[in-house]
Amino acid sequence: MSRFQEETATDEEIAAEAALYAPFTNAVRELVDVTIRTEVEPDEVRAAQVEVEAIVERLRKKQMPGAYGVRFRPDGSRGRNWGNAVMGLRNPIAPPLDVRTDGEGRAWSDFHLGAAYEGPPGLVHGGVISLLLDQVLGHAVSSSGRPGMTGTLTIVYRQGTPLGGLRCEAWVDRREGIKTWGKGRMLNADGEVTAEAEGIFILPKWARNLDRFRAAAEASEAGFDLE
Amino acid sequence: MSRFQEETATDEEIAAEAALYAPFTNAVRELVDVTIRTEVEPDEVRAAQVEVEAIVERLRKKQMPGAYGVRFRPDGSRGRNWGNAVMGLRNPIAPPLDVRTDGEGRAWSDFHLGAAYEGPPGLVHGGVISLLLDQVLGHAVSSSGRPGMTGTLTIVYRQGTPLGGLRCEAWVDRREGIKTWGKGRMLNADGEVTAEAEGIFILPKWARNLDRFRAAAEASEAGFDLE
Repeated sequence: MSRFQEETATDEEIAAEAALYAPFTNAVRELVDVTIRTEVEPDEVRAAQVEVEAIVERLRKKQMPGAYGVRFRPDGSRGRNWGNAVMGLRNPIAPPLDVRTDGEGRAWSDFHLGAAYEGPPGLVHGGVISLLLDQVLGHAVSSSGRPGMTGTLTIVYRQGTPLGGLRCEAWVDRREGIKTWGKGRMLNADGEVTAEAEGIFILPKWARNLDRFRAAAEASEAGFDLE
Repeated sequence: MSRFQEETATDEEIAAEAALYAPFTNAVRELVDVTIRTEVEPDEVRAAQVEVEAIVERLRKKQMPGAYGVRFRPDGSRGRNWGNAVMGLRNPIAPPLDVRTDGEGRAWSDFHLGAAYEGPPGLVHGGVISLLLDQVLGHAVSSSGRPGMTGTLTIVYRQGTPLGGLRCEAWVDRREGIKTWGKGRMLNADGEVTAEAEGIFILPKWARNLDRFRAAAEASEAGFDLE
């Protein structure tokens, strides 16, 4: 199983990796979308399958033993979470969300959700809404100076959220001991609130016990991308 | 935008489509996994990207204008939700979950989550847990005889959920008017509860107002796969 790992790559190496993997992952995101939507002839689907299987075989010749994990700089200045289900630069199921923070407990993201995120017809899956809000709330909490693992998450659905352009916003509501309360909401393209969220985030044990990571948590401005 | 559509395919046609699209979608799921994990040389990644882009271009030559939607039989006996983010046979981001129901308000699913569903290192993303529990709770509610849109969803995280073999269980707790309360939990491979869920599900307006869909809802044993 993957664990928190120390980042061994330099800035230049990370930039080169991003330039390689971001467009490849975007191509796979397009493939995910068209896998749902294509209406070409069966023979063309079968031909595509054979080709995809061949690509998979080649790419699997050298691969990590498990999931991507999270890679931290020795100075704790940054966490690289490229496998993350919501934000991962290398994860095709991540929309991906580019979450912005103000360093004082506010986080937000503007993004687009296509066919892959559907629940009710034409609408975002209710569980996808909770997935994204969990992530953005976590960032708000991290950006307040302390990382947090989700303890409790409550989502109230106000109306259907249409697929398309959307926005998530989150902020820190209050803090008590190892707990931080975050609140947030999902907005549709017209700026109407479609869902609201409240989460209780718990300071993880490693951040309480390990000096290095505690220092990292305190130093982090952009958040730890823990989720 | 997609809407509820009437199913026009016969059983035989649906079976033929499933035999075509299920293995293709599984191949794309493998590609999603290895996109995160591959460590082959950069040139091989670039070559794979060019090939994936070419496949996408061919598959896009004929495609649905939007998302997949949900297709209902005229007799209301079944809904086909192959684009669904959690269960969709044609959706590569769906694990997919095969949700079983007893027709009396209980639902469960055994499944495997790989690298694409990661949040904290080696662990399932907390938001993915809420995504899956939302779906399984919705099935429990549907299997009790009435479909439901999620109104409120609360997840309590008890411990980290390791990637790998997992199980979700859900059941109807009680019902009042148009509201149904569902409860559920996520279990790790050792059968320990890692997260608990409670949801309030609201009978959708179309099911209250449209005779055809009301009849469908009442007739449905397997649930409407609304989410």
